Amino acid sequence: MAAKKMAIIATKGALDMAYPPLILASTAAALGWEVQVFFTFYGLQLLRKDLSGIAISPIGNPAMPMPVPMPVVVSMLPGMEAMATSMMKAKMKKKGVASLEELRTVCLEADVKFIACQMTVDLFDFQKSDFVDGIEYGGAATFLGFAGQTDVCLFI
Amino acid sequence: MAAKKMAIIATKGALDMAYPPLILASTAAALGWEVQVFFTFYGLQLLRKDLSGIAISPIGNPAMPMPVPMPVVVSMLPGMEAMATSMMKAKMKKKGVASLEELRTVCLEADVKFIACQMTVDLFDFQKSDFVDGIEYGGAATFLGFAGQTDVCLFI
Amino acid sequence: MAAKKMAIIATKGALDMAYPPLILASTAAALGWEVQVFFTFYGLQLLRKDLSGIAISPIGNPAMPMPVPMPVVVSMLPGMEAMATSMMKAKMKKKGVASLEELRTVCLEADVKFIACQMTVDLFDFQKSDFVDGIEYGGAATFLGFAGQTDVCLFI
Repeated sequence: MAAKKMAIIATKGALDMAYPPLILASTAAALGWEVQVFFTFYGLQLLRKDLSGIAISPIGNPAMPMPVPMPVVVSMLPGMEAMATSMMKAKMKKKGVASLEELRTVCLEADVKFIACQMTVDLFDFQKSDFVDGIEYGGAATFLGFAGQTDVCLFI
Repeated sequence: MAAKKMAIIATKGALDMAYPPLILASTAAALGWEVQVFFTFYGLQLLRKDLSGIAISPIGNPAMPMPVPMPVVVSMLPGMEAMATSMMKAKMKKKGVASLEELRTVCLEADVKFIACQMTVDLFDFQKSDFVDGIEYGGAATFLGFAGQTDVCLFI
Repeated sequence: MAAKKMAIIATKGALDMAYPPLILASTAAALGWEVQVFFTFYGLQLLRKDLSGIAISPIGNPAMPMPVPMPVVVSMLPGMEAMATSMMKAKMKKKGVASLEELRTVCLEADVKFIACQMTVDLFDFQKSDFVDGIEYGGAATFLGFAGQTDVCLFI
């Protein structure tokens, strides 16, 4: 039986939604699937060498479980975004959740193909030197060629 | 002809994005499809027995149709999140849209399989007693096994 | 070989997430794929004749590349949403990215089928006269009938 194939379009760059593409891609690769991830829009943030700027915002997200209920006006005070980010990171570390960097390395070592959307790279003036090695650059048309053959294709 | 299959990864827990997984799952089940929904990240909020805390935020969402145009600074005043939530719920009720609880019951009665992401349950310290009965617990690997056989697989 | 098929559920109406459904649909149509887009929730905003109200919010989106780092409290000042929107539009124009109107026209001319979700039209009191010509109205059940036959189905 041929290996299953999965394509992911990763468009988000905040800490919470940065996890799903990397968790799903690394899990599928571990199952022997062929996986490609197309990073576009804010998803390009996940290809930066330095991921320390990946943050999470408690604002406009009433579904985020918080240690204490936080009124909207409090969540907007200076420093709250940084605080929410470090709280989330500490919680993940304590619970043994792999870091984004670790998951990304697992993906690359398992031959998950990472493709940076050339159009968004140009639009946001990203530099190729900002990104990790081992990735490719391409457009939606090339990616759809692969996506059309997959068993699972997700827009995240 | 074999029944169609659909897999949904439900990651959002705000009022607006809580609807799509439940509407699509119940509709597909009504068509005779085999459906599994994997609830992860904020999506776990949809499995709580008590859904009254599901809210909607007008902040950072310029696309939300509002009865009156609302400047960003107003949308951040204390109570506006609760107000937007109750306005949306009232509108849905008036228009005959089923509640989240009703749609969830329809899904469970139609044998839609609900799976709570064990990793997120642990991460956010959810208690199994918080959740409705009749659900399973699992991980991404198991879910991908089903997803790889589906006709439609959506990340919401 | 039969043409590939793609189904897109377009649920977002902000400037950034308005692009992916239209870019993917027009690209797939150019490759000869049969494409249907189901516009629901905020995605209905993309069917309005006048798209000038489509905006982007810097609030609650720490992943948005900004010309200058902007504290959350600043991003909430009156006028910042309009400023972020016009900055993004100016950047896209300068970089040669097609406008939403142009991409939408390309889709319609390439026989991409646009379907407005009747339930959301009713819920948000949209008027058919608000929308562009050449679209259809339907529900989730009909759309799933097509989605179940596709090679790629995305929830955006």
